[in-house]
Amino acid sequence: MSGSTECVFCKIATGEIPCLKLFEDEDCLAFLDIGPLAEGHALLIPKRHYQSLADLPGAQLGRMAAHLPRLAAAIVQATEAEGFNVLQNDGQVAGQVVPHVHIHVVPRRPGDSLGYRWNAGSYPAGRAEELCTEIRRALA
Amino acid sequence: MSGSTECVFCKIATGEIPCLKLFEDEDCLAFLDIGPLAEGHALLIPKRHYQSLADLPGAQLGRMAAHLPRLAAAIVQATEAEGFNVLQNDGQVAGQVVPHVHIHVVPRRPGDSLGYRWNAGSYPAGRAEELCTEIRRALA
Repeated sequence: MSGSTECVFCKIATGEIPCLKLFEDEDCLAFLDIGPLAEGHALLIPKRHYQSLADLPGAQLGRMAAHLPRLAAAIVQATEAEGFNVLQNDGQVAGQVVPHVHIHVVPRRPGDSLGYRWNAGSYPAGRAEELCTEIRRALA
Repeated sequence: MSGSTECVFCKIATGEIPCLKLFEDEDCLAFLDIGPLAEGHALLIPKRHYQSLADLPGAQLGRMAAHLPRLAAAIVQATEAEGFNVLQNDGQVAGQVVPHVHIHVVPRRPGDSLGYRWNAGSYPAGRAEELCTEIRRALA
């Protein structure tokens, strides 16, 4: 099942390294992050090794993501949180540490000092339209 | 299609408010965020109104998420980014501003001052196992 014999998440997926498992199916596994940002912080991973979400077959990510509403609701219920973030860091520049796709579910409470740094900007005239065209071209 | 006549994302979904559309299908729509954290910052939304991801039918979130690998790859290609974050803020406490589920794709570059505040902690002995049991119970 693993594509990398050195990857810690591949070893968790095969059971070679233990985890606090929340659930699993044929393709994916959810477990508690042992360096949590908040109590109940969970990770959802594909069992197969993919470094980037951009490399995951869409259908496989879809099957994984279908678990997220139920997983997030269970974490919120068990931790009595007021909300949550779903987060995936893709690439070292984006905060990815383990090079095996993992989706964080982080329960949130007031004053927890978590969250995304929200330095929002704006586009100069015409730039957003230009980017839209470029991304649409890349999608085509 | 809309469940809320006052919701700005419902109005974008129906076309009542224009957007810089990247793609759409029957269930979902992707467009550029007009208050971007970085050039190419995009939003993926369900066309139907759901306030919380926890309320979305899993299969519908799965169909949406199946687009993410292709969307993220196109954004990275068009912006020449080095990585990206996929983020969903659920609840005001988690940074959700528009109360209609939206998944952010934020392209990342070195020194962009973005990213999640990573105040990681650890569990006291026994607490992680206890939480694991509680979340599994909530999932059952």
